[in-house]
Amino acid sequence: MITLGVDLGDRSYPIYIGESLLDQGELIRQHIPGNSALVVCNTTVAPLYLDKVEQALGGLKHESVILPDGEEHKNLTVLNTIYDALLQHRFDRNTTIIALGGGVVGDMAGFAAASYQRGVHLIQIPTTLLSQVDSSVGGKTGVNHALGKNMIGAFYQPRAVLADTTTLNTLPDRELSAGLAEIIKYGLIKKPDFFDWLQTNMNALLQRDTDALAKAIEVSCQTKAEVVAADERESGQRALLNLGHTFGHAIETGMGYGEWLHGEAVGAGMCMAARMSQQLGWIDDNAVAQTVALIEQAKLPTMAPASMTVEQFMQLMAVDKKVLDGVLRLVLLKAIGHAVVTNDYTQQQLEQAVAVSLPT
Amino acid sequence: MITLGVDLGDRSYPIYIGESLLDQGELIRQHIPGNSALVVCNTTVAPLYLDKVEQALGGLKHESVILPDGEEHKNLTVLNTIYDALLQHRFDRNTTIIALGGGVVGDMAGFAAASYQRGVHLIQIPTTLLSQVDSSVGGKTGVNHALGKNMIGAFYQPRAVLADTTTLNTLPDRELSAGLAEIIKYGLIKKPDFFDWLQTNMNALLQRDTDALAKAIEVSCQTKAEVVAADERESGQRALLNLGHTFGHAIETGMGYGEWLHGEAVGAGMCMAARMSQQLGWIDDNAVAQTVALIEQAKLPTMAPASMTVEQFMQLMAVDKKVLDGVLRLVLLKAIGHAVVTNDYTQQQLEQAVAVSLPT
Repeated sequence: MITLGVDLGDRSYPIYIGESLLDQGELIRQHIPGNSALVVCNTTVAPLYLDKVEQALGGLKHESVILPDGEEHKNLTVLNTIYDALLQHRFDRNTTIIALGGGVVGDMAGFAAASYQRGVHLIQIPTTLLSQVDSSVGGKTGVNHALGKNMIGAFYQPRAVLADTTTLNTLPDRELSAGLAEIIKYGLIKKPDFFDWLQTNMNALLQRDTDALAKAIEVSCQTKAEVVAADERESGQRALLNLGHTFGHAIETGMGYGEWLHGEAVGAGMCMAARMSQQLGWIDDNAVAQTVALIEQAKLPTMAPASMTVEQFMQLMAVDKKVLDGVLRLVLLKAIGHAVVTNDYTQQQLEQAVAVSLPT
Repeated sequence: MITLGVDLGDRSYPIYIGESLLDQGELIRQHIPGNSALVVCNTTVAPLYLDKVEQALGGLKHESVILPDGEEHKNLTVLNTIYDALLQHRFDRNTTIIALGGGVVGDMAGFAAASYQRGVHLIQIPTTLLSQVDSSVGGKTGVNHALGKNMIGAFYQPRAVLADTTTLNTLPDRELSAGLAEIIKYGLIKKPDFFDWLQTNMNALLQRDTDALAKAIEVSCQTKAEVVAADERESGQRALLNLGHTFGHAIETGMGYGEWLHGEAVGAGMCMAARMSQQLGWIDDNAVAQTVALIEQAKLPTMAPASMTVEQFMQLMAVDKKVLDGVLRLVLLKAIGHAVVTNDYTQQQLEQAVAVSLPT
């Protein structure tokens, strides 16, 4: 087992990465301060791992709530079912919510923990590659609104993150690829050596080689922990973690939540960001080709959906959280391994970058 | 104009108390960091003061959203209409939400500010006595759930509070009394001299004497600011501010939100707390009589609703936010001007205290 730390003063917490962590009850229980816990999971994860986690909780008072699976259910209505369960079972302010599942479960259970009785304890047990390398770390929680993704939420840190790599054995191939999108992102934004390593080891990752996965998760969590510790509430460099996400969120919202997986939209979005960086003269053809090739090798889309239009992208991106006083800041590349946040582009250049990423 | 400070490090903020503050545009604008603002008010307050506030905003991009009036609308569904307005008008992360109204508007607009894009700026402009002396100060925000009051929310501090005492001229008598309940509370929990002053000046307050109201608001805000600065997230003494609230919330939930005003329920709740303190032998008959008399003088109820039962109280109080690991902590009186948080009582004593407060 590897233990990493997220350094946030009195809100610091450990990330445990390793095999069969769910079998280690004490590892979970030591992070539960009260005498009760609510496990939040979904219809896919519950049959696989809920029993294990409930066993780990031993004699603690515990209940579970099982959400419908999928990004299209990440909304206020489904969130309310978590509050219902908490109140029906009279869970108090010292209770712990355990998020057991992928990014959607983590985001919703996290926001429920942030807002139930103005804040209860939270443990993240991510069971997908994407949530292990990204969403479970850093404290971003929330739900979608019909007019924009993740528009309602809170920064709320967990007391611990347990990434049990054994759970990846049951992950569908499509979701494995979605997780690889966020892993590639860390290479692109600030770890050029890791990008090189990924070029060499992508096939091992796709074949679920245990050592390769553990290494990719470790570097990803370490990179995210560094960025979050430096800028918890995204007033500066944390925005770099959104490489590909402004384009990607527009795809997710435009196609309807759940059509494209988040990682798939980010994959295409990073290709769009690379192409725009090239058009601005910041990176060369070769850097774009390498980026697109690695994303393609991870079995992710590299083009925007054919059914969307430039106008639709412009409209959807105008409500992005990175808009400040009317100006959309984009994350673009100065090199592979060096991303920047910028508003140094024209509307026309943005439109053109979208246009070349739409299939003809 | 009086200026008080709430001392919370980098989240400190001023409370301005005085006449005709809404006519001072610069006072509001200096606390708006971005170039846009959304005014949240309700159907009662909008015709009275919305124009004034919109004028104060001058050239800033601004919109408004008008909520239905009343505690029964303080829920996730109505909250969502604030998010709708924010997104429809493409308000970004640097926007400011201005809560213009009573406690319900302040709580909902505050939680919208806490959660929209994971947090935007907030200014509180309370227009009722209750919100000027209590809910606008201290950062508690949230909405109700069918199974419990204020069960969903966040601690989120405003950038400034403007208590314009001129707005009290349009306040109905019943709401004036509701505000007096919270004012009496500060005397009971830690300001015995202020309790004496209130005994002498209650009639002046009921007759809306400007000087008396200004003094009562100042002492109340000052007391609340002291308590909040010492214990922002209610891990200790802040719970004292809940004197009468555990009983009161049970009344509000039991009767259906909106039947009893919050201040009315707190008035009766403080009488219940005083009677229970007496039964425990902590205060004498005279202290109870003085407490009940002052609350009665403020034209507030001093008994629980006749339609409720002891069993109903027990059930509703079991989900109170002050329950920790299954034990309900109550705020009770050791003397007039000295409240404590305690679990030093038996279930039977609690039931008896409720029973003697039910009309026979």
